[in-house]
Amino acid sequence: MARNVERRAALADAGLRVLAATGARGLTHRAVDVEAGVPTGTASNYFRSRDALLGALGERIMERLAAPDERVLAELGARAPSLELFTDYLRHIVERTTRQPDLTRALIELRLEAARRPDLARILGDTLRRGYRDDVAFHLASGLPGGAFEVALLHYAMDGLLLDLLGTSVEAGFDPDDVVVAFVSRLVGTADR
Amino acid sequence: MARNVERRAALADAGLRVLAATGARGLTHRAVDVEAGVPTGTASNYFRSRDALLGALGERIMERLAAPDERVLAELGARAPSLELFTDYLRHIVERTTRQPDLTRALIELRLEAARRPDLARILGDTLRRGYRDDVAFHLASGLPGGAFEVALLHYAMDGLLLDLLGTSVEAGFDPDDVVVAFVSRLVGTADR
Repeated sequence: MARNVERRAALADAGLRVLAATGARGLTHRAVDVEAGVPTGTASNYFRSRDALLGALGERIMERLAAPDERVLAELGARAPSLELFTDYLRHIVERTTRQPDLTRALIELRLEAARRPDLARILGDTLRRGYRDDVAFHLASGLPGGAFEVALLHYAMDGLLLDLLGTSVEAGFDPDDVVVAFVSRLVGTADR
Repeated sequence: MARNVERRAALADAGLRVLAATGARGLTHRAVDVEAGVPTGTASNYFRSRDALLGALGERIMERLAAPDERVLAELGARAPSLELFTDYLRHIVERTTRQPDLTRALIELRLEAARRPDLARILGDTLRRGYRDDVAFHLASGLPGGAFEVALLHYAMDGLLLDLLGTSVEAGFDPDDVVVAFVSRLVGTADR
């Protein structure tokens, strides 16, 4: 059995580059081998099916998007919880995801592809649910207004904003920063403590 | 030049069925011909490039999603503008889009695909901007609180909710109806009139 964690991550990163360049259309085990510069059959060895490959890409995306920018997080972590601090966290998410637009695009594409692929839906669902639960725990620990419902509202709102920033936009012409501020103050700030 | 409007719509509908079944991977002019039961070369005659085909699918989706449910709209149109009425409009959108999940999924996929295809981005951008401008005009005419900014906030928030309902969900476990009510009251109801 193939067990090399670094090799697995490198293959997943190659898969994400293929996905970014060609969309789901061009994503095959063979294309991943070529992109990663490894012998034919390597990707199939790590990811036994197309669902396993797509699921691994989903996990890798979440891993990379979650990878903390230590300096920024240290600064944020040193401040007392407040809606302003929470807004700055979301700004950091927008900044990080739009700096790696292909990752976020790929994650949305995989979420839609999963509607046709139950195995992928299972793998990706586990990853997404874990992320949401972590966000709720973080929010409750912070003592900010609201709870799980407000975290869900923000999740939807931020996903829609990112879709607009990374795909075809309605071009409403507002600064994403003003949108984030409004989301936090109106969706969270109005909630009971 | 091919000019048959009905044939064009039928080809686009066939393209949407191909997209729903196979994703962007399987969408070729040939596959559209087969799905529509027309001679080889018909789809290429109507849509000269892949971008033209994808753009036509985008327009067709917007056309079909906008197709009014006359009975529901007549009922809604007879009521005086209020946040409750506005909420009921959005409920109708959720109901209509989740009843035709493939259409909304395909629209999101096309918006992402457009990041790799400038021609598609142009065609789809025109359609989306027009839809947003219409929504803003409708909102301003209604006399409800807020304006273009609130319409943009709702656009993002609703897109994110639909992504969660139609793709892999974070499974927050809340009723979409409660989410829509909260979006309207918190994002629009808090705005200046």
